[in-house]
Parts: sequence; C-alpha cells; structure tokens
Amino acid sequence: MHRASRLHLPTLRKAPADAKLASHQLLMRGGFIRPLAAGVFSYLPLGFRVLQRVTGVVREEMDRAGAQEILLPLLNPGEVWKRTGRWDSFRPPLMKLEVGGADFCLGPTQEEPCTDLAAADLSSYRQLPMTLYQITQKFRNELRPRGGLVRTREFIMKDAYSFDVDNDALDVSYQAMYEAYVRVMQRLRLPTVIVHADAGSMGGWGTLEFMLVTPDGEDTLFLCSRCDYAANAECATSPPPAPASPPADGKPTLVETPNARTVEEVCRQLGCAPTLLVKTMLYRATDGAGAGRFVAALVRGDRELNETKLANHVRAADLRMATVAEIEEATRAPQGFTGPVGLSDTVTILADPEVLAMTGFVVGANRADAHLTGVNHGRDFSVHEVVDLRQAVEGDRCPRCDAGELQQHRGIELAHVFKLGTKYAVDLHAVFADEAGQERPAVMGCYGLGISRVIAALVEHGHDQDGIVWPLEAAPYDVAVLVLDLEPALLETAEQFAAAAEEQGFDVLLDDRDLRPGVKFKDADLIGYPLHVVVGRRTRDEGVVEVRRRRDRAERVVPTDGVVEALRELAAEA
Amino acid sequence: MHRASRLHLPTLRKAPADAKLASHQLLMRGGFIRPLAAGVFSYLPLGFRVLQRVTGVVREEMDRAGAQEILLPLLNPGEVWKRTGRWDSFRPPLMKLEVGGADFCLGPTQEEPCTDLAAADLSSYRQLPMTLYQITQKFRNELRPRGGLVRTREFIMKDAYSFDVDNDALDVSYQAMYEAYVRVMQRLRLPTVIVHADAGSMGGWGTLEFMLVTPDGEDTLFLCSRCDYAANAECATSPPPAPASPPADGKPTLVETPNARTVEEVCRQLGCAPTLLVKTMLYRATDGAGAGRFVAALVRGDRELNETKLANHVRAADLRMATVAEIEEATRAPQGFTGPVGLSDTVTILADPEVLAMTGFVVGANRADAHLTGVNHGRDFSVHEVVDLRQAVEGDRCPRCDAGELQQHRGIELAHVFKLGTKYAVDLHAVFADEAGQERPAVMGCYGLGISRVIAALVEHGHDQDGIVWPLEAAPYDVAVLVLDLEPALLETAEQFAAAAEEQGFDVLLDDRDLRPGVKFKDADLIGYPLHVVVGRRTRDEGVVEVRRRRDRAERVVPTDGVVEALRELAAEA
Repeated sequence: MHRASRLHLPTLRKAPADAKLASHQLLMRGGFIRPLAAGVFSYLPLGFRVLQRVTGVVREEMDRAGAQEILLPLLNPGEVWKRTGRWDSFRPPLMKLEVGGADFCLGPTQEEPCTDLAAADLSSYRQLPMTLYQITQKFRNELRPRGGLVRTREFIMKDAYSFDVDNDALDVSYQAMYEAYVRVMQRLRLPTVIVHADAGSMGGWGTLEFMLVTPDGEDTLFLCSRCDYAANAECATSPPPAPASPPADGKPTLVETPNARTVEEVCRQLGCAPTLLVKTMLYRATDGAGAGRFVAALVRGDRELNETKLANHVRAADLRMATVAEIEEATRAPQGFTGPVGLSDTVTILADPEVLAMTGFVVGANRADAHLTGVNHGRDFSVHEVVDLRQAVEGDRCPRCDAGELQQHRGIELAHVFKLGTKYAVDLHAVFADEAGQERPAVMGCYGLGISRVIAALVEHGHDQDGIVWPLEAAPYDVAVLVLDLEPALLETAEQFAAAAEEQGFDVLLDDRDLRPGVKFKDADLIGYPLHVVVGRRTRDEGVVEVRRRRDRAERVVPTDGVVEALRELAAEA
Repeated sequence: MHRASRLHLPTLRKAPADAKLASHQLLMRGGFIRPLAAGVFSYLPLGFRVLQRVTGVVREEMDRAGAQEILLPLLNPGEVWKRTGRWDSFRPPLMKLEVGGADFCLGPTQEEPCTDLAAADLSSYRQLPMTLYQITQKFRNELRPRGGLVRTREFIMKDAYSFDVDNDALDVSYQAMYEAYVRVMQRLRLPTVIVHADAGSMGGWGTLEFMLVTPDGEDTLFLCSRCDYAANAECATSPPPAPASPPADGKPTLVETPNARTVEEVCRQLGCAPTLLVKTMLYRATDGAGAGRFVAALVRGDRELNETKLANHVRAADLRMATVAEIEEATRAPQGFTGPVGLSDTVTILADPEVLAMTGFVVGANRADAHLTGVNHGRDFSVHEVVDLRQAVEGDRCPRCDAGELQQHRGIELAHVFKLGTKYAVDLHAVFADEAGQERPAVMGCYGLGISRVIAALVEHGHDQDGIVWPLEAAPYDVAVLVLDLEPALLETAEQFAAAAEEQGFDVLLDDRDLRPGVKFKDADLIGYPLHVVVGRRTRDEGVVEVRRRRDRAERVVPTDGVVEALRELAAEA
C-alpha cells in the first residue's frame, strides 16, 4: 500500500494553454507527465507506474509469443546505418552526434543494431527462428512535436525483430507477433482497428498498423461500411471503375486556355466538370547510381495524387516533383500545361485506373496557354502502366466487398507489424548455414509498438469530463481508498481495507492527505483510479463504506467486512 | 520454465583479445553482452535477465527507503545545464547534439532535469521530504572506454535525488539511501567497503563511495590495517606528524645547484635525502569573475602533491599549474628553482603538515641554478595555511585510530552518496514556502548506483577458472536442469523437475539443446547458474538425480522425488 501523503502527486486545475488533446491535458493535470523541452517529457511517479504497467502487459505478451528480451544501446554507431544506406536517407533525419571522433546517432528504430547483434552469433539454421525485442527510448527529429505523448522527440517503444530461415517461417513469426498485439490491445481495452499500411522508409511488405480510431488522431484511415476492410490513407484503394464509354470520335482539339494552370481555372474557361479532366503531374526519379528519369502520373481532375503509392510503384532511391526548369525541358512548355499527348518517349506514363475509364477528356497540350479536348488514351497517347495512384476519399467503393462504402476516420497509430525480407541481413551479413551447408541471409520481420503513445491513446479513449478512466491493467493504482476524515480510528479502518485489498492482489493507494473531501474526490476522478473506496462519516456512524467504480459510477454501499468482495465484483464487471 | 533450445545463448570458447578483465572476458564468453561500438554494449537475453534482476533488487530497496521512481528524458535541453554552469565545465565534456535548432546533451547524471522537474511543482514544505529516483542509461564521453562494463560510454545507472527543508532533514534522507545501498550490496553478496571520497564536479560534501576491492579495479583506495577507516586516493589522509626537531641555527645558505630542477637531481648534487627537501609547486587560480592569483603548494620532497585536495581547498573556478612564463613572472627565476623564501606577498603559500614538522630543509632559491639549505619555516618564510596536500601512500599512519597503517588497494566504485546543498535548487529555482511562508531553496542530496558496473563487479568478485559464480539474486536463472540425453522419458522427467522447482519460486532453465553432455556442463559452469540439476543415465537406471551447487561444487545425489528439497537446501546454504 502506498500513502498519497508521501507521494509526489501534483495535480493541476488547469492544463497548459498549448495542450489541445484530451490526453495531453489530462496527463498534465493528473500529474503524470511534465515537459522538459518541446516533445521531451518526464514521467512523474504516477506516470511511471502507468508506464510500468503497460510495459508489463507488453512484456508478458512478447514472452508468451516466444520473443526474447534484450537491450540494445541507444548510441548507434553511424557505421551500421551507413551499411544499410539509411544514415542519410532516413526521414526525418537522424539525431546525430560525434563521440570519440566517430559518428553516432540516436536510434529512431533499431533494425541496424539488432541485425548486427544477430549477425555476431548467427551461424546455423538450428538457431532459428529467433525473435528479439526490447523496450527502450527512441528518438525522432520531429519538426513540430505536439499532442503530448502522441508525437514526441523522445518516446518509449517496444521494438521486435524476427530472424527466420525463409518466407514461410517468417510468416509464422509474424503471425505470433500479430496475435500478441491483438492480446495486448484486448488486455488494455483499446478497440483498435488493424489497417493495411505502407512500409515507409523501412522497406518491406505485409505492413499492418494497429490504430485507435479517435476524432483527434493525426492519421487518416478508411473503413468499409459493410465488411472489415481497413486501410490507412497512404494505401486505401478502390475496385477498378466501370468500363469506359465508347472512345470519342475524331481527333483531339487544341483550345486556348490563357493562364489556366489549375483544374479549377481550366474548368471555368472550358465550362466542363473536373471529372472530364486528366491531371498530368511530372516527377523526377533518381536511382541508386544517380541516374534520373521523368515519370508522368495521371489522375482524374477531381482526384488527389497519392505520392506514397507513386513512390512505392516507382521504387526509386529518390522521387520528387519535377522543377519548373525540368518541366520545360521535358515538355517544352511552361508549367501548368503538361499533358500525355506527344510527350517524349523518355517519360514513363503511369495512369490511375479511373483514367482508363475515361474517354474524350481534357489534358494539357504541352504548349503555353493551351489544352487538348476530346482526348482518348490508346489512340492519342500510350499509358506505360496502369497503377492505383489516387488518394482514397469518403464514399469510395470498398475494394474487398465491392458493396460497402469507404468511410474516412482519424486515428492514432499504436503498433505495426511488417516483413523486411533480407535487406538488412544482406547489408549487415546476418547469415546462417542452411541444412545443406549453404550460406543464406536471415529473413526478417519487424514489429513496433509505441508504449508512450499507447498511454496517450488510453486517455484519448478513456476519459470523461472529470478526468481519466484507466483500464485496470494500465491504471497507476487499481484502488484508491479515500479517507475523508483523518481521525485515528477512521484512518486505521482505511488502512485495514487497503491491506485487505492488497492481499487480494489489488494495487492500492491510501489517500491520507490532509485535504478537504472535495479535493480528494476531484483528484481521484481526475487521476482515474478504476475503483474508489470512500471511508468517511458514514463508516463511523453507520458502519458502511461506499465502493465506487470510476468508469460508470456504479456504487455499492457495503458493511465494512464487505469491501473486498465489493471491489472484486466491481472489478470483474469492469 | 524456459528452454535453452529456444533461447539465444551464444557462448564462446575464447574471449576477444581486447578483453583483459575477467568480467569482460566471462560476460562475453557466457553470451551476456556484445559490443556494438567502443564502450557501447548490447545485452543478450541472459545479460538482460541479469540486468533485470539487479535492477529489481535496487528498485525494491529504493522503494523500501521511500524513494519514488520516475523517468527523466535522456535528451537534456542545454538550457538547464547552462543555468547551473555545467554545460561547459562538466568533465569529461558532455555529449552534445542539436535538435530542432536547440542545444541538447545526453545526461551523464541528471541533477539538472530532476531539479527542474521538482521545481515545476514544489510550493510548500508539506511536500518535503521527497526522494525521486530513476534507472536509465547515462552517457559519458570516455576517452578510453575499457574493461567491458566497468568503464563505458553508455551505461545503466540508478540515480536518486532528495529534496529537503534543511540540512537536518537532508541527513535523514541521506541516511535512508546509505542504508538502502548497504542492503543492496548485502543482497548481491558484494563485500563493498565504504570510503570517503571527493565530490568531484558535482559540488557538495559528505561523499561516500561503495567500492568493491579487487586487484583489477581502476580506482585506488586506502584501508586501515586495524580500524575501519577507508578513503579513496583523492582524499585519504594521515594524522599530523610528530613535532618538529629544534629549528636549525643561523641563516639559510645559498648553494649552487646547476641544472638541478628535480628532487632527484638536487639530492644527488647536495648528497641529501629527499625527506630533507621541500618541493614548492606554483599554481594559478582563477575565480568566477576571471581574477587570477598564484598559489604555492609545499610538500616534502619525497611526497606527491594531491591536486584534488589542493583544488578542494582553493575552491577556484579554475586551477592549473603555472606556466613557465608565469613562474618567471612570480619568482623572477626559471622553472625548477621555485622556493618559499622571499616570494612575493601576492603568492599564497600553502604547506602540508609534514613541512611544518621539518627544520633546516632545502628549498629552491628563486634564482637560476641555486637552492637554499638550512631553511626553517616561520623564521625564513611564512606559511599562510597548513593544509593536507599530499598523496597518501602505503604504510601511512591511520588518521582515525592512529595505530594501524594504511594499506593501498585497487577497487571498483559501484555507488556513491553525497550532499549537494542548495546549489542546484538555487540555480533552477526549486523553492518552497516554509512554515513561516518564507521562500527557501530545497536542500538536496544525490545518490548514484551503477547498475551495469555492479554486474561487472559481481563477475570480478564471483568467478573461478570455469566461469561465473552468480549470487542467487543476480543470476540469469537460479537453476539449470541439464538433460544429458534427449530421450522422451528423460526429457519428460526433467520437465517435471523444472516445473516443480518453478512452483517453489525458482527461475529455471531447461537445457534441452541437442548437444553433448560435456558442452552442457561447460556452458552451465561458464554461465554460472547457481544450482544445477543433472538428469541423465543414472536417473533412468538408478532413479537418482545429481543436484549441484555451482559456487562450491557441493553435490547431492537424491531420488527423483527429492530434487526440490535438495535445491532448497543448497540454496539456503548458499
């Protein structure tokens, strides 16, 4: 049993002005965290307890799944990051420093050190499968840290890396981590959705993200209104559209469109709908050897190009929008009038499936102040590849069931699983001899779970106007015994309740502070202990105790010998 | 129960060539740690388990002492370190980096962030006493990291900070931490000595260090042969020497000593013993405002000056040996001939007590190629202050009992406690209103314990020619069940032993690897599980099991239903 009178529990009436998210406000007000710098937080005793409990749940599920806990250094030598090529390419840029004259960085993730560690001792297929994990601070050079624990420069993350003999074995390791995450979220009562996502700068495939849907989330995701399809905005897709109408007759017509560089302006001048336009966006792709080429991306005029989809298809070392000078070089026309007709053969033309469903449309004429109308693909220009390139929008048809509509939501990404393949093992020589004695690189998977972000998510999901509503497995204490009057007999009774509850396995805080009852009630609600035991005048006068559940305000008034039983019942129903 | 067949336990036959210390060699060979860079180590699964167990002991004793666990960020904003003046003065220099355009460092210790955290919410004396602690990575820019986990650039440390209303209250908080450290060392079976030490760059007083005496330690300490006096080399002292013989008659004599700049050379030319010489060393002290002055430090010719003692007495912002030009300026003579007679009044003369016990001695003449003989202090020059300035040596009389002799040892510093006073609270405005409503700075103490260094110390102290001998509270597993033959019946029997031992609270590893018995025995000794259960042919043929204790090779051969009882007995006697 801990005594509140001996704990550092500084609650605040008001949240700081810069705290916009409920979790940021309540974690500050409840005395869980304090900022030390922008995006850099300290955990006070209560915050540390929550951190320990969430960590405990994650650790148990990792261990149950057969993963082995290790600890990698936070100081990462630049050398291993240079061998995978991520020293310069990682985004946002790594936090770098020099130690003893050598390059180091603070890891935002730890594929490199973990693969290097495995490489040191891996020799035989008999050592595999092997999944290593750790729970440590990670560092991200966020330009604009915000939202309290949601987006910080230093955060606590569980990262795991699996090493397998082949893709089939990887599937097994991956599935074990996936199921561990499902159990973690269940135990923490976080109703996450599992969405398809992009692998980002890690490379890989099979990426799934565990997301909490919440109005203040910083990610966008799409869920089907009928089936369980779920994808984040970077990769949500739709079925191919209905077949095209018959191609337009005749030839394209050149029309004057002075200064019409935007879809809106072209439509205004030509009096047509944006759905009749095709936007042509020119990109510059550079391969690992530094060789560049142009890529034209075509989407319907009312659509947004999804650059992640484009980048995933092109798979270039670097991909960026072409500059004005490059557009003039490639199209011999000013920016704003690019179109697919008559483009140089050196430009790769990629078109979204919706473009294939259009006929007689409008495109830039590759000439100043001019567009072409009545254009057909095939007849007037060739598409090199048809690629899903557009940003999904609310109301799109579901690509899985083809019956429901995609609905747009906001969410917080809490965890991800994905398959890395052999990239890191090849770069860092994590190889083993297979049964035939052949040397092969390990096939890897990678599994991250943001512990500090989970804490923010628990509060985003679990709060009301009075404060936080923690699930039992994450609460700083399970039970708060509030002593409303510090007269010795009552205090002693309260101590007996606390001791009895501890014997039953509850973590108990005895609020024995010399404060008014109103302050204790308010603090208990704000901090969000799941169960409250109120010891006050009625205990002395009537021999009864109020036992309350924070979540739904369920209350039992029980005789003093019924407190533990009431706690057990309320906890079981929670 | 864990199965060795599913664990990453890479043992090595040979330690790497650069591993000189037994702990470095055995932690590498046993598969506990691997280097990622110079002075930067990863913990493999076994190493992580040891780390967790040692951390657990420390955490329990901190909590028992009433300290509250928190977590401070590893990214420390430069701003708080600048406010205490340690941004530039900390030695070795801080590891610095820029994040979002602002200065940050990686904390080697965390007085600044912790005081800043306390300052944010401290308002009343009612909140005190308060001791906050954390267990996290720390960073030191070691020029030459060495000795495996003994001296690294990244290490795990428990650091605690106490906040009190006054010095008396600080004494209570300090004592609680002191006693907690005594218990930690007892539980880990580390026979530490507690030595007086210097506070170093932290400032403060009451510094005690918990040291393991070990021949390969990197620190020097002195222990009395009779009493419990113990001090590290920086502050070991001796009682004042016997009273001086009667002063020499007459006047000092100027003697020619061409090119005699060293004690050895002067003694050779004059044919006298070094104990008849007094060395005069000139230092330049600069105060905070930049004003400089000269300090002459006098010790007997055969002694070494202890610069830490000199610096502690002078308490200057900066203290260094005078340059050749400065010596010439202050003494009007070349370097090597400095003496106290006729020195400018602007030079402060400090003399070691031994000098006061001398008469008719030899000093530099402040003239090229000349010394003075037959010099007496008092008559021929004035000493401004008598200060213990010399380095202790083996055989010095004990300053406490005055009967024993000091004996020189090597040791590893594992922990320290010291009193900081109000410096950090003043600089970072950690103030509270006292009972009278007066604003006062908190009085602080600081308590560090090197977790990773404790692991190294456990191995330095606990090993034999076959490997590590862990104490029960720090072992990666308490019990290893070695299955010498993987036939199903034997394996099942072994699993039953393992399960039964786990029920009794032992952490058990089942060595079910498909390896020869000799390899399993060697690994079990090398890794150092405290208790071994051997399941082999005798189990099948005779129904008996060998239960062994690693430390002293005690062995019991018991029937299969006596395994747990034998384990309990051997553990209790350990």
